[in-house]
Formats: sequence, C-alpha cells, structure tokens
Amino acid sequence: MFVLGIDPGLSRCGYGVVEQRGRRQRAVAAGVVSTSPTECTPDRLAELQGEIRSLIDDFSPVVVAVERVLFQTNVSTAMGVGQASGIVMAEAITAGCKVVEYSPNEIKMAVAGDGSADKNQMEHMVRLLLDISKPLRPVDAADALGVALTYLAHHGVPAGMGA
Amino acid sequence: MFVLGIDPGLSRCGYGVVEQRGRRQRAVAAGVVSTSPTECTPDRLAELQGEIRSLIDDFSPVVVAVERVLFQTNVSTAMGVGQASGIVMAEAITAGCKVVEYSPNEIKMAVAGDGSADKNQMEHMVRLLLDISKPLRPVDAADALGVALTYLAHHGVPAGMGA
Repeated sequence: MFVLGIDPGLSRCGYGVVEQRGRRQRAVAAGVVSTSPTECTPDRLAELQGEIRSLIDDFSPVVVAVERVLFQTNVSTAMGVGQASGIVMAEAITAGCKVVEYSPNEIKMAVAGDGSADKNQMEHMVRLLLDISKPLRPVDAADALGVALTYLAHHGVPAGMGA
Repeated sequence: MFVLGIDPGLSRCGYGVVEQRGRRQRAVAAGVVSTSPTECTPDRLAELQGEIRSLIDDFSPVVVAVERVLFQTNVSTAMGVGQASGIVMAEAITAGCKVVEYSPNEIKMAVAGDGSADKNQMEHMVRLLLDISKPLRPVDAADALGVALTYLAHHGVPAGMGA
C-alpha cells in the first residue's frame, strides 16, 4: 500500500511516497514540486495541479495525507499554501483516494514523539524510520515523508516497528 | 463572449456569467455552489471542483475573473476561501481560460465607482448595469456578477455603456 504525504505550498510543495508492505515501510519517492514566483498565480496553480495529478497517477496511493495549514504561522505565504492544499485534496478525492489532514503538531508527535521537534530532528527521524542513509534535501521532501508516516503511525503498523 | 465571475468560498462560492455581445452586457447565469459544513473538507473541495468544472464546460467562458482574497479580513474563513480560489484558478487555466484576479476594492470601484461601496449598493449597481429587475439572492451571486463586470470594465466596453 502506498501513502502519499504532502507538505503543501505554491512555491515549494513537498511530496513523499511511503510503501507499507507487511511490517516494512520504505520511501518510494520524495521530492518537491516547485513553481516560479515570476509566473502568475493561476498558471502556477494549474502547473501544481498537473504535477499532483501525475504523482497520483504514477503511484496510485490508497491514502493522501496532507499537512494542515495554520494561518497564524505565516500570513505572507498562507494564501499560496491554502490554494495548494485545496488543489491537492480535491485531486486526491476525485482520484478515489482517502484524504486525511494532520496538524504540524500531530506530525511531529507521530514521527519524533515530540510536538516541538525542529526541522533537523524531524529529518533525522524520518531517515531513521525509513532507513535512508543520505540527507533528505530539500527539507520539504522529508516533511512530506513525515506526513505519510503519520498516517501509517495512526492506521498501520506503528512507524519504526517494521524496520 | 462569456465572462465567468467567481466570489470564492468553501461554504458558499458565488458564480455569475456575463455575456458581452457588441456593446450589450447581460447576465446569463448566477448562483451559488454550496457545500455542507457537516462534510469533511476534502469531500467539499472535490464537490466544488466538480461544480466549477461543470460551469466552465457549460458556458465555455473566455475569461474567469476571481475575487482576490485578503487574509486580514476574516481569518476564520480564510482557509476555505484560499482553497476554493486555488481550485477555481487551476481548473480555469487547465480548461484554457484566461484568469484574472481583482481585489474587493477594484471590484467596488469598477461596479459602483466607489471603493467603499457596501453590499446593498453593489447589488443595486450590478442589477442596474445588467438590467435585472428582481433582487439578486443570495448576495454571493451578485458579487460574482460584479467580478465579471469588473473584467469587462477593464477590457471590454465599459460597464453600463451598452445598456
């Protein structure tokens, strides 16, 4: 079973695909969909929509897990994040996926056992849980894998138990 | 030529289609796509995406004009508005439409000649410009027609000159 994790954003939208097979979890893909700030917003949103659709087509995830945006945190990027998350969730439902949302705190708790874990700690734990030796760059990709792991921690074999 | 105006929202997304033929402008359709707050957000977003796609299929607008969301105004509904606007703009670009965004102030200026016009004044002016005798309800539909008229005021025959 594949779970697609998404760290939504307009300039940078992180994605990570985790496969759960028995008690094993492994990263199948991770990366970032970037759109250029020099293009107009509608074109960027359409580009993102196309890329997300391709990801869902390529991996046929059963679940798409999306980080929930908290508007209080960064008003300047909040709009793009909201627009991106809307597109991702609509595409996922239309493709027949189950969609779940997790707050940043829930993701940190599930992956690092600590709601105040920082970016480095999260990247470290994601690599540990998925047995990835190389640093995960850009960090949005690690975040997205963390979102997918959160779903599996809640619904599948607990993260780390399959390693 | 048809212009589709959108007043984006998740609970209520206003739409209005204005036809420009020569110097005449007329309202072809106006209404609201509503989604239920009792459903989960991803399902509501997918429902909205489907309805917007149907509107674009039905009317083949050359232009989709969208009211730009200002996050400062209402944080509690900002997320849903951002998600809805993202879906609308991505769908419109993918369908080959030109997409433009206008701030609430630009729309009020174009329709009522007054950036501080209130809802009643806007609804009155939209009806006057489009020669609509009955009150436009819900008001989101009037707002959406106002967004479409803003595009025509900027790019077509000035609103009201064709009446």
